[in-house]
Amino acid sequence: MSTSADTPHLPPRRAPAAAVAGLIADCLAAAGLARADAETVAALMAEADLTGADGHGVFRLPQYVRRLRAGGFNRAPAITVTRTAPATALVDGDNAMGHLVVRRAAETAIDIARETGVAWVGVRRSNHAGSAGLYAEMPTHHGMVGIYSAVASANHMAVWGGKDLLLGTNPLAIAVPTGAGPMVLDMATTVVSYGTVKKHTLQGLPLPDGWLVDRDTGEPITDPAKSANGLLLPIGGYKGAGLSLMLGLLAGVLNGAAFGRDCVDFNADDVTVTDTGQFVAAIDIDRFVGRDRFVAEIDRHLADLRASARLPGVDAIRLPGDRRRDCRAERSAAGIPVPAALVAALDGVAAELGVTPLFGR
Amino acid sequence: MSTSADTPHLPPRRAPAAAVAGLIADCLAAAGLARADAETVAALMAEADLTGADGHGVFRLPQYVRRLRAGGFNRAPAITVTRTAPATALVDGDNAMGHLVVRRAAETAIDIARETGVAWVGVRRSNHAGSAGLYAEMPTHHGMVGIYSAVASANHMAVWGGKDLLLGTNPLAIAVPTGAGPMVLDMATTVVSYGTVKKHTLQGLPLPDGWLVDRDTGEPITDPAKSANGLLLPIGGYKGAGLSLMLGLLAGVLNGAAFGRDCVDFNADDVTVTDTGQFVAAIDIDRFVGRDRFVAEIDRHLADLRASARLPGVDAIRLPGDRRRDCRAERSAAGIPVPAALVAALDGVAAELGVTPLFGR
Repeated sequence: MSTSADTPHLPPRRAPAAAVAGLIADCLAAAGLARADAETVAALMAEADLTGADGHGVFRLPQYVRRLRAGGFNRAPAITVTRTAPATALVDGDNAMGHLVVRRAAETAIDIARETGVAWVGVRRSNHAGSAGLYAEMPTHHGMVGIYSAVASANHMAVWGGKDLLLGTNPLAIAVPTGAGPMVLDMATTVVSYGTVKKHTLQGLPLPDGWLVDRDTGEPITDPAKSANGLLLPIGGYKGAGLSLMLGLLAGVLNGAAFGRDCVDFNADDVTVTDTGQFVAAIDIDRFVGRDRFVAEIDRHLADLRASARLPGVDAIRLPGDRRRDCRAERSAAGIPVPAALVAALDGVAAELGVTPLFGR
Repeated sequence: MSTSADTPHLPPRRAPAAAVAGLIADCLAAAGLARADAETVAALMAEADLTGADGHGVFRLPQYVRRLRAGGFNRAPAITVTRTAPATALVDGDNAMGHLVVRRAAETAIDIARETGVAWVGVRRSNHAGSAGLYAEMPTHHGMVGIYSAVASANHMAVWGGKDLLLGTNPLAIAVPTGAGPMVLDMATTVVSYGTVKKHTLQGLPLPDGWLVDRDTGEPITDPAKSANGLLLPIGGYKGAGLSLMLGLLAGVLNGAAFGRDCVDFNADDVTVTDTGQFVAAIDIDRFVGRDRFVAEIDRHLADLRASARLPGVDAIRLPGDRRRDCRAERSAAGIPVPAALVAALDGVAAELGVTPLFGR
């Protein structure tokens, strides 16, 4: 794919979310996905773009189309849900696109938790599902807390002290309802995502100390040209490495899905089944302190946090999900920014599939 | 309390775990706790010492005795468990010592999860419960994954960018069974615990950059004499601050327990009810991939991680819980090390309560 480094002088163009979702749905359908499934994935990818998770939106379309056409995704999957106990279920994704599988898992968790107070839904034989925050957020619209994690779709981290690529950025997302809408924490267990490193690398920007270390020397990598030999660093050193490991065991091994050396790097391989594991948990707030009191108390506490005296040089307190919420408002109004190089790549995909291009909609 | 800084030349003495537990039980009983409750707390505190959580073992005895005698703990609590849904419960601690309340919550979670596959048990009106790992570990002995978190019993952190003390080190513990026994991740959401800072401060050791920043300047504090004006730093910057916030909402607000400005600093105040919130979740592995396959797969992956090539200067790969397991073996055989200053403090407590001192057992 061409990159934004090719055309640094052009500002991104803006496309309405509906046009972005329309392009994605048309391309996925043209690549063989059922129309309804294509629209489901498109809506989730456009939502990722709206909420600022740029690495999980339309940016992924060329790769997803490639994998669909190469047979790496099952284009006509039979996703099955097995209720394994009153409060648990195991979803077998049948190698579908991850968005379809995890959305189903989240819906299942919400349905079960309404009955049993909490639900834990594991996922196997799934794929990359994009923005973690999307799935943690779903239960909040039903008065529930949502928790999501996944085995990342490539290993860019090592065990603490090691250099073999055996761990991923395994994200954790936790979401709660507040008076101003969902508050979503969506974090990788690494200091930055590999996508952020790639963005810097493509633009030739120096990498801040603390992002990557060299696999051979253990020294920080700040030269973007050397990033391919790097290991992503976990947050909090051994703590983040341990958290990534534990989340990987819960999202992967507990569900009989891939982990560690069995993980497939889906960025480098369009064909091999990834057997991605994820989980979604939902907790019904009405079985605890109750929805109204919960939201009122959270709002009171968040107001305290926002009103906190600030350290020198800090112009405003930002809480988890603030950027996401602001971004959604701005982009809903002004459109989703699409860098020129990505426009070109999307035009190529659209032409190949005989689909109306993004800026012809 | 006198400190190890007073007597830096004396090595710690070693006491058998049974003697430590006996001293704790006798002191707590003499301070008014029912004998059975005193023994329950003593066993958990001695286990914290055995597993290397020195800040949560017999070190806490003088403070706990002080709070019991001051009426800050309910010496004759009626802990109640309300099953709020098939898979959830809310435990009201009636201001008991936290160990009693959270052990009850973990037992409840195990019982419920056996029926429903997963259980989420919230806790309100509890207190400081010591080592987080203890409670996450309990479900592993029943073929389950255990998860525990708590609102810390003092605020030593600010919201990201802020300087008001509104957040705590809110720990997260996750435990799974392995072939070699439980693997326990037990981490604060701060780079270090406040206990570690205090230890350095008492010994006059410089503080590494990255532990604390000065509340007024935002600059790192490395001079231990200035630690009182410091804010603990979260792991991964805004990520750890967000994780602490979310865990606090789940352990505190969801259960109707204290959070944020309502938190009582129980190190500074022996009387005020803390209304501490915690939660324990248990997930029955047999409702997912099954216990035998889970353990076999984890052992295979852990062997891969341990065999990883190492970064320069690293002599061995250490996984979560390794230190804990090794420490338990060594201290079970050789005894629990008790610094001279702590021996003196414990002797003072024992004398005051008319109890046999630690090294008279």
